[in-house]
Amino acid sequence: MSPRAGRERFADSRERLSSSRITILAEGAFGVETAKTASSAVRYQPERVCSVIDSRFAGQTVGETLGFGGDIPIVATFEEAMAVGPRPDALLVGIAPQGGRLPEAWRAVLVAALGLGMDIISGLHFFLSDDAELAALADRHGCALFDLRKPPDDLPVGTGRAMRTEAFRVLTVGTDCNTGKMTVSLELQRALAERGVRAAFAATGQTGILIAGTGIAVDAVVSDFISGAAERLTLEAAADGEAEIVLVEGQGSLMHPGYSGVTLGLLHGTLPQAMILTWMPSRPRIYGGNHSWVVLPELDEVIQRYEGALAWACPEIPGRVIGVSLATYDISEDEARAAVRHAREVTGLPATDPIRFGAAPLADAIIQARDAHAASA
Amino acid sequence: MSPRAGRERFADSRERLSSSRITILAEGAFGVETAKTASSAVRYQPERVCSVIDSRFAGQTVGETLGFGGDIPIVATFEEAMAVGPRPDALLVGIAPQGGRLPEAWRAVLVAALGLGMDIISGLHFFLSDDAELAALADRHGCALFDLRKPPDDLPVGTGRAMRTEAFRVLTVGTDCNTGKMTVSLELQRALAERGVRAAFAATGQTGILIAGTGIAVDAVVSDFISGAAERLTLEAAADGEAEIVLVEGQGSLMHPGYSGVTLGLLHGTLPQAMILTWMPSRPRIYGGNHSWVVLPELDEVIQRYEGALAWACPEIPGRVIGVSLATYDISEDEARAAVRHAREVTGLPATDPIRFGAAPLADAIIQARDAHAASA
Repeated sequence: MSPRAGRERFADSRERLSSSRITILAEGAFGVETAKTASSAVRYQPERVCSVIDSRFAGQTVGETLGFGGDIPIVATFEEAMAVGPRPDALLVGIAPQGGRLPEAWRAVLVAALGLGMDIISGLHFFLSDDAELAALADRHGCALFDLRKPPDDLPVGTGRAMRTEAFRVLTVGTDCNTGKMTVSLELQRALAERGVRAAFAATGQTGILIAGTGIAVDAVVSDFISGAAERLTLEAAADGEAEIVLVEGQGSLMHPGYSGVTLGLLHGTLPQAMILTWMPSRPRIYGGNHSWVVLPELDEVIQRYEGALAWACPEIPGRVIGVSLATYDISEDEARAAVRHAREVTGLPATDPIRFGAAPLADAIIQARDAHAASA
Repeated sequence: MSPRAGRERFADSRERLSSSRITILAEGAFGVETAKTASSAVRYQPERVCSVIDSRFAGQTVGETLGFGGDIPIVATFEEAMAVGPRPDALLVGIAPQGGRLPEAWRAVLVAALGLGMDIISGLHFFLSDDAELAALADRHGCALFDLRKPPDDLPVGTGRAMRTEAFRVLTVGTDCNTGKMTVSLELQRALAERGVRAAFAATGQTGILIAGTGIAVDAVVSDFISGAAERLTLEAAADGEAEIVLVEGQGSLMHPGYSGVTLGLLHGTLPQAMILTWMPSRPRIYGGNHSWVVLPELDEVIQRYEGALAWACPEIPGRVIGVSLATYDISEDEARAAVRHAREVTGLPATDPIRFGAAPLADAIIQARDAHAASA
């Protein structure tokens, strides 16, 4: 099978990015924080991962190394990755290098992959498509260089146009970063589909973009255009005429001193009609030593802050938090059930851990809110 | 006088950027919105502007064209600019080109200026220092290329470290963009100096950077680092051991759907102990057709929003709005006095238009707040 023939399986570049078979370059870093893109790909799309390259764990499976990911083999070299199992269509660069430049050892692997007609997918801060050698090779071999974090160069300043979508707009917000905003969005998309409701997912981070095949990594956007990026994503997702609901992936937290600006920009660019609040019960403070001086308030107070901040720009919508999504993977099932009960009691809203207990209560809440909005319009 | 000899008048590059004599390239755009950097330079530092280049107004003075700026001559060409009055040390590119590239006609002017040993100062979105030809010429002639909007490439994520400064932190915030945040900061710096209190000015926009000789244009920073940029600016300004007060130039508004993220990032990066609220009484809505659907609330409500949003990250400071600065240049003096009275009555705080009526009430309020903070510490 020639590479080109393989590629014909994909309808367009979006499908190619989101569903090609991949091998993941994670040399020296698989399982650690700098290989977050690698772990995320394995966690959310194990079926497309043919192999992981990290010589430290060669011979093991991903499941043995990470505790999830099953039988995906870990191999020592790119050549071995080409020899095991089904042939991958693309190489995912799943690690961030020290110093912000492309190490020469990696370049050799990328050149080899392009020579075999494979696409390259990268979440690096610098863009492979700006590299003259790689760009020329990709062009010659008909391959794509997908830079997940590269923002469009024509982003607008946000203007509130998102408020005119016919689709019902839902934004995930959070008490903190890494509390399951992308996860609950994807679970909700599936649960809504099971109820016959088509929802579009607007990705704002690199893992979401890898999964959706499109999106804008808002952490890489120049600050004047955060809200404009959210606006464009919302409008584009809503332009899928069959989508009745747009689920916009949130980022950060209004309470996070490092990322609150991104969060507010997303809020004012999306102008959601409903929000799902994500919460990790094991974290009473903002996570990470640099920010743990921020003590998080009770959930009802968090909800007031999000609803209040949204109304600063748009009092007439008015968007409400309609449910709470918990991330409880680091506590026992009993503790998780108690936390869900607590969230329900404090907020008076449906609450669940969508992975542990299913997304049904939140999917039902969205449909209800959408119907109430339609009835009042 | 050789260019190099002239340059020895400056102690360092900061002084060189902030006080060199300049000619301003504004061909085809002087007096219009795209030449905002040009107008700002003339408005705030007329004494350093030798001439303005715009063939459309050649022969007039800046005062005749803009209504301010006095006798500064407008000339048709760079060669004429070199022939009138004192010899400039630098060329300020005071216009933004269509399409985001450097027009060839401008390049010729820049090359000529560098050939004469002149520095180039640019507020363009693309960076002259990234242009191989200009960089090589600047190097050869010992000139500086000052890209006002180029952010440092090693900005941190904000971590709250600003809260540890010994200097008292004051941030200007606003009901909207362009309500006089930079102006009142500079007037306060002067008024505090008259009272024997040394205040450092931390510039966050290109005009402020041109005036201060240092700073970070936060609108050009990648969104993850807005708060980190504010934090670094605050720490650097406070590191001037003689500064008792740091005045951080705010941007945008929490109520501005396009820029609210930048505003919140500045708030959580600076963690001010006091805020000055800027207000333009003639604007009941966010300015500009794209955003005029946002109706601004009464000033006491605006103050609650800023104080509340600051406390999200840092309830223990707690930073307060301690005065209101008005921009009344577009209303009559009677109307301006009525607006100042209104601001005082609604907020219970000192209020003034620092240009029209002087900054004294606000300077006194800052000293009082600083002393109260010191007494309670």
